[in-house]
This record gives sequence, structure tokens and C-alpha cells, in this order.
Amino acid sequence: MRIGELGEFALIARIARILKAPAPRKGIVQGIGDDAAVFHAGRSPQVLTVDALTEGIHFDFRYTDAESLGWKALAVNLSDVAAMGASPQFALVALSLPRHAVVDEVLRLAEGIRRCGKTFDTAVIGGNVSRSQSVWSVTVTVSGECRNGRPLLRSGARAGDIVCVTGRLGLSCTGLTALKKELAGFERAKRRHRRPVPRLAWIHELLRHDVRIHACIDVSDGLSSDLAHLCEASRLGALVDLGRLPIESGTRKAAALCRCNPYRWALDGGEDYELLMTMSQAEYLKAKRILGAQLTAIGTMIGRRTILGVWPDGSTRPLKAGGYRHF
Amino acid sequence: MRIGELGEFALIARIARILKAPAPRKGIVQGIGDDAAVFHAGRSPQVLTVDALTEGIHFDFRYTDAESLGWKALAVNLSDVAAMGASPQFALVALSLPRHAVVDEVLRLAEGIRRCGKTFDTAVIGGNVSRSQSVWSVTVTVSGECRNGRPLLRSGARAGDIVCVTGRLGLSCTGLTALKKELAGFERAKRRHRRPVPRLAWIHELLRHDVRIHACIDVSDGLSSDLAHLCEASRLGALVDLGRLPIESGTRKAAALCRCNPYRWALDGGEDYELLMTMSQAEYLKAKRILGAQLTAIGTMIGRRTILGVWPDGSTRPLKAGGYRHF
Repeated sequence: MRIGELGEFALIARIARILKAPAPRKGIVQGIGDDAAVFHAGRSPQVLTVDALTEGIHFDFRYTDAESLGWKALAVNLSDVAAMGASPQFALVALSLPRHAVVDEVLRLAEGIRRCGKTFDTAVIGGNVSRSQSVWSVTVTVSGECRNGRPLLRSGARAGDIVCVTGRLGLSCTGLTALKKELAGFERAKRRHRRPVPRLAWIHELLRHDVRIHACIDVSDGLSSDLAHLCEASRLGALVDLGRLPIESGTRKAAALCRCNPYRWALDGGEDYELLMTMSQAEYLKAKRILGAQLTAIGTMIGRRTILGVWPDGSTRPLKAGGYRHF
Repeated sequence: MRIGELGEFALIARIARILKAPAPRKGIVQGIGDDAAVFHAGRSPQVLTVDALTEGIHFDFRYTDAESLGWKALAVNLSDVAAMGASPQFALVALSLPRHAVVDEVLRLAEGIRRCGKTFDTAVIGGNVSRSQSVWSVTVTVSGECRNGRPLLRSGARAGDIVCVTGRLGLSCTGLTALKKELAGFERAKRRHRRPVPRLAWIHELLRHDVRIHACIDVSDGLSSDLAHLCEASRLGALVDLGRLPIESGTRKAAALCRCNPYRWALDGGEDYELLMTMSQAEYLKAKRILGAQLTAIGTMIGRRTILGVWPDGSTRPLKAGGYRHF
């Protein structure tokens, strides 16, 4: 069987079954299966995460530039660190480049990484450069620590929790679509697609105010997929009020221009790098006071292991995980 | 200018200039420029390293199998950890696979990683799977700690130090050549090429006996290149007695069959994953008593910043760094 037939998540599950340490190793807090791995070392739990961006798969130089690519390659990892409630510290950068790559472009990529690292207090301390046959690929590893002592896992949600999300959904998809269809305007969306903002400041603000977050994941594949990951890890389901999804007017406008459904962009678009969290009603109110319009309650965790979407017309249908699939 | 014109090490130097933290960040012991990065976290210094193996560049499925590839992808990182005098702890695995990859082959790759991890006490705690357009690529990150408190850097060599190397040189190149030319036999060399052995046990044995190693690097690019890296980091030169290079009879035999110079294989072959170290004469004698035939003195560090090779015929010529170059 080819991996294209098995599918991405089934493949990961089978790999994980082989690689999971036979006996739980001392010090591992969270192994394969969350936004980042967590282990004990010294004072506070350490997190470690890796993500790759490959030309032709994750990006296309027709729609981005080398500096933005560098920013994004680090930012998507910082988003995973944010989803653990951790603070990033160090990064390693593994570059795979074709021989014909232009030196100045590679240095612009490095500049993008540097800027993102400077903005989010992450130092690049090592890496690797090797040749590829034809396309660029950037694989970044980030280490960090949970300064508040406890990582936010996908698996901690409880039935009755409020499901909430930061920022706006579908904005990255809006930007990419506007770039592909050469729509004028939509600058904020285009920029968000090229240079996503990891929500480190917001999650740390919540943790600083002792908001008790039960579960957290970043929205990288798409809300529908990432909520499914959170539900599966927590062995619960969810009811999502689609009418409450935080969708910008720009997204609605671009979707109308393209005759697309803006809800599908918000659900399946992916690459928003917002944080999807669950918490009790009381903690949500506290969080809402802190983040204001940047936090939106979109549903409730339920005991039944199914994810239901309530559409604005009142119809309720199972919400299929429909985000990006590699295979 | 294309990176093919600039060259691998000049490119790395230019990237490093951009990425190096403007102010030395608290906690960084060794940033870009050694086998692994080192930083302080908790009790002992932590190391972090990353390496990628890409199909068509680093390996070819005509000469290796998926399980060996998995082993090697982890082992080459463990070799970097060994070169720091550290102990590996955790690994992240980022796989990039074409849609047509066969599931069972991917699982065999995972099995190879698992076996190598089990052998060298390293737990895989996370990773990433994404699609590639056509070739396989495996990028492994390994974290570890310097239990003896101090990492072994490339930069600590002193003039007058003995230069010594573990194991045999040119064995991996012998194996690859035997595979390519379909030479029967040479099984040990072929296996060594496919499944290199990180020298963790040997370096820890030396450290356990308090052998004071001034500088250390693993031989991945090739002795001539890696000695040049060590000399550059230490701002010294070296005199290498080529007649003393630890070359197996199998390597000499295969080289004779192919009308090749076995010294070139030992100098430039690369992928031996042995350790190249420098230490005082007294410490070398101590180390030699511990490792016996597995340690060979091959030269001396000199104050003049040049690397000279003394050939078996008595002629002395500058030793050009001739190992593998990506660009």
C-alpha cells in the first residue's frame, strides 16, 4: 500500500506505534501526539518541536518571498510552542537548497528567520545546510520551556468546556487565495499568510493571569482538523456554532468574489496559527476580559465523541475534518 | 551569485553572520559552528543538533534499505552528540515523503530509527510528517546533556597536542564503492556505510577515566575537511603522518581493485563517524591504554595555521580539505 492511500494521520499513528518507547522513559511528559514534545530537564519542563516547509508543497515563490519564508519557517514552530503554553528559547535551522539557489535569496531567508527570532526572543544556535536536487526546504527545530511549570496539552479538555479561538479564522486562506487569483487589496490577509504571528504574547497573558486552560492546540491544518485532534486526544466531542466563527469582513468579501463559502475557509483553510483552547465557563469569562475581541467562544465540548456544526440556518451536521492533508 | 559558486562553508559563514545573536544570549555556551549547539538549562549543559539525509544527495535506495536509512538518520546525529562528549536523550524525526512511498518501507525506516534509539538510549518523542514532490528526506534533531559538565568543542586544541582518531578511516567509502561497483565481499565495510556506529561508548569511557580531551569533532565530511574545521576553530595547524592513518586491509584491497588511492578514501571519503580528538601526549597515552587498537595517533597540532601531510614516501605537502561538498 502507498502512503497516499493510507493517509497522513493513519501513517503517523503507525509510525508512532513503532517509535513509542516500550517503557515510559523517565522524564518524558508528552511524547509523540501533541504540538510539541515535553520532557523534564532542570527546573521547568522543556518543549521541543520541529516543522518543515518545502517548496511546491508548503509554499510557492510566486506567492511569497525568501524573507517571509524565513519568518514563517520559524513562526510556525513558535506557534507550536505557544500552543504548549511555553516560551521559546533556541532554534536550529536545517536548510536544503538546490545548487542554483541565489546567495542573496538565501541570506534574505536568514534575515527573515533573524527578524522572527528577534521579535519572539528566540536565538538560532545551530543547524545544517545541505543540497537538494531541485527545491528549497527549511526545517526548523525550536526548544523552549514551560515557565509556569505545566504544559498545555491537547488531551485536557472536559465535557462542558467552552471552546474558544484567538484572532480570526480563514485569514491566511483569504490571503493565499487573493495572491493566487491576483485580487487587489486584501493586504492584511496576504501579509498574514506570508508572515503568520505566533500567539505567544496572548497565551502568556492568559497564563500570567492564571487562566486555567484545560486544552490547547494551534490551528495549523485548519479548525475542523485541529479541533478533531483536540477532541480525539481528550476523548470527547464538540458542538460548534459556526455562526460565531470569527471571520473578517475581508474574508467574506474575498470569498464572495471567488464564489467560495467563507465558512469553509475558516474551517478548512489552515495556516491561521491561532490558538484553539477549551476552559470552563468562568475561566472563559476571565480570559475574555483579558483578550477582549481577540478571543471568541465558538462552541462547547460534549461527552459524545462526535463533532457537530450548527450552521447559521439552524441545521446541525457532523463537521468533517477537512483541512490540509499531506497524503 | 549562485550558492554553487560560493561553496558550502562560505555560505554557512554568511548565514551565521546574520543569525548570530547580536548580544551573546545568556545561557548559550556554543552557538553556530560546532558539531552541536550547547546551552545551559538546569543542572548540566544541554546539546542540540540536527542533520538531514535526502534521497539522491545523501543516499540512494540502490545501495541502502529503508531500515538502514532510519538507523543512519539517527546515528549521524548521535555522532555529533558523541563529538561534544555528551549523552543523547531525545530525538525528533521530520519525514518528507512522496505520495507514492510504500507504507511498509516507511515503517521499516521507523524500525531502523527505533533500533538505533534503543541501542544508544535515545527516545523519539516527536516529529513531523509532510509530503515531498519526489524524494525521501529524513531530518533528525537530537537533544542531549553533558553529564560531565563541560562540552568538548572544536576550538580547544593546543599547539603540541597529539591528533588522534578512533576506529578506522575510509571504511564507509570502501563500503559504498564496493556497493556501487558490485564487488563481492567487503560486508563489514558495506554494513558500516549503511549503519554507522556513533562512538558514544568510547568517548564516555575516556571521559569516565578523566582523559582531558582538548578538542573533538566527528569525521563526517572526511578527515581532511574535519581536521581543517578543528584547526580553524582552534586557530592552529596540524602535521599529519599519513602512513599512520588507520586503514583496514579491506580498504586497501578494495582500493587496489578499483585502482584508487586508499589514502584518498581515508582522507576524503567521509561518513566514517569516527572521532577526531586532540590531547596532550600524557593524556594520549592514558587514552591509548583505555581504547587500545581503537585509538590511533595520526599527527600533531602546530602553531602555524596550515595542515601538512607527510606521505609514506617522506614527501610533505599541504593537505587540501577534500571531503564531500554540498555546493
